[in-house]
Amino acid sequence: MRFMTSSDKPDRAADAPETTDDAHTGVAALDWAAASADPQYRAAVVDLLGALAYGELAAFERLAEDAKLAPTLDDKAELAKMASAEFHHFEQLRDRLAEIGEDPTSAMEPFVAAYDGFHKQTAPSDWLEGLVKAYVGDSIASDFYREVAARLDSDTRALVLAVLDDTGHGGFAVEKVRAAIEADPRVGGRLALWARRLMGEALSQSQRVVADRDALSTMLVGGVADGFDLAEVGKMFSRITEAHTKRMAALGLAA
Amino acid sequence: MRFMTSSDKPDRAADAPETTDDAHTGVAALDWAAASADPQYRAAVVDLLGALAYGELAAFERLAEDAKLAPTLDDKAELAKMASAEFHHFEQLRDRLAEIGEDPTSAMEPFVAAYDGFHKQTAPSDWLEGLVKAYVGDSIASDFYREVAARLDSDTRALVLAVLDDTGHGGFAVEKVRAAIEADPRVGGRLALWARRLMGEALSQSQRVVADRDALSTMLVGGVADGFDLAEVGKMFSRITEAHTKRMAALGLAA
Repeated sequence: MRFMTSSDKPDRAADAPETTDDAHTGVAALDWAAASADPQYRAAVVDLLGALAYGELAAFERLAEDAKLAPTLDDKAELAKMASAEFHHFEQLRDRLAEIGEDPTSAMEPFVAAYDGFHKQTAPSDWLEGLVKAYVGDSIASDFYREVAARLDSDTRALVLAVLDDTGHGGFAVEKVRAAIEADPRVGGRLALWARRLMGEALSQSQRVVADRDALSTMLVGGVADGFDLAEVGKMFSRITEAHTKRMAALGLAA
Repeated sequence: MRFMTSSDKPDRAADAPETTDDAHTGVAALDWAAASADPQYRAAVVDLLGALAYGELAAFERLAEDAKLAPTLDDKAELAKMASAEFHHFEQLRDRLAEIGEDPTSAMEPFVAAYDGFHKQTAPSDWLEGLVKAYVGDSIASDFYREVAARLDSDTRALVLAVLDDTGHGGFAVEKVRAAIEADPRVGGRLALWARRLMGEALSQSQRVVADRDALSTMLVGGVADGFDLAEVGKMFSRITEAHTKRMAALGLAA
């Protein structure tokens, strides 16, 4: 994506070898037909797809709303473009749920409160906050998709990677935020606090989901998929937080 | 589009033979390179593309906002789908402006006040008003695209027809509105008033644009394109209003 520097967008092959590694083991070596014979794995994937689908739909709504804060028509169009991309991700995930015989609405409903809570707590008060949120949200979503992909059966993995491949539209925000901070360094302090609040709220809502959803959590902590234990989940959250911190620093924000 | 009956969506070949007629005359017989040699025609097309582009971007924003009124996730997804389609139309129109060497923002700016005024005056107060607005707006846009296409050079016409071809996502609204009226006939009276207000506001904003934009108006009244005179413009507005009235009747609303 334009304006992205190599520090903004890590090389996938180098940073996430597991997603390009053909030597998958455990569930990752199976396709959906084989893997879904385990009802717990199936329930976990339905949860995952439901959570991702509603996340994309909620992101669409909030980005479209935040586009109203744009100072120019170009800026508005950029945020609208991200919103539209999220909507297409939603469609892919929803269609997949229907394809495997699940009701998309039922699959999404358990996650509505967490996402709506997140967005309610993090409504940007101006355009720059909106840009930072768009960028942070998009980046964390990419990181999470990449992390989770390797733990999935080959069919679900292909879908998650396809959605991931079309993520990363938030890069346009980087240059604009950087320019605003250069023009007025005090902006940096305010946005750094904002970015920290975004991450804090995201983590707190994620914990709520993990506590509520047994099948999904079990998959993440290794009860079903391969090689995942509680320490590994902790490491995943650490890696995502660390990547966030690096991105914020690259943006001129001490996270 | 699903749920559309033949009375909702007229057969293009029968109702708008001019768009499928190969025997184009005047400007319609030229391509953009030839037609745009006339600076007045060029200015008119830039106005038209700017007006359509901002109309699509504004529609995207309002549909995305109105999606929040949806009672179910399915309904929300339907309105979000329309919003996303409008965004892709915007992209095509904006890209075409850039392709012919015009700044899209400058081309759109003269029309911002009219569209924003329209949407400000017609913010739906509930989901059914939102559905009627989505359907009416989508239908009027289709009618206008179809009418105007025949007056354009072949390249601009191809673009307008391509966008038109992807319009008509509002059909899902028909069945829902009809069901709501059946369940409570008083709803019909309220929505009929609402639809009349939408059309009135659309006409009043269109008149404002026609009064302000010389090149565009001149093209519409026949100064540049072929066969268009003031009476013809009046007829065009009549045809669009009449089609609207028919659609509203089919929906169970006396318009």
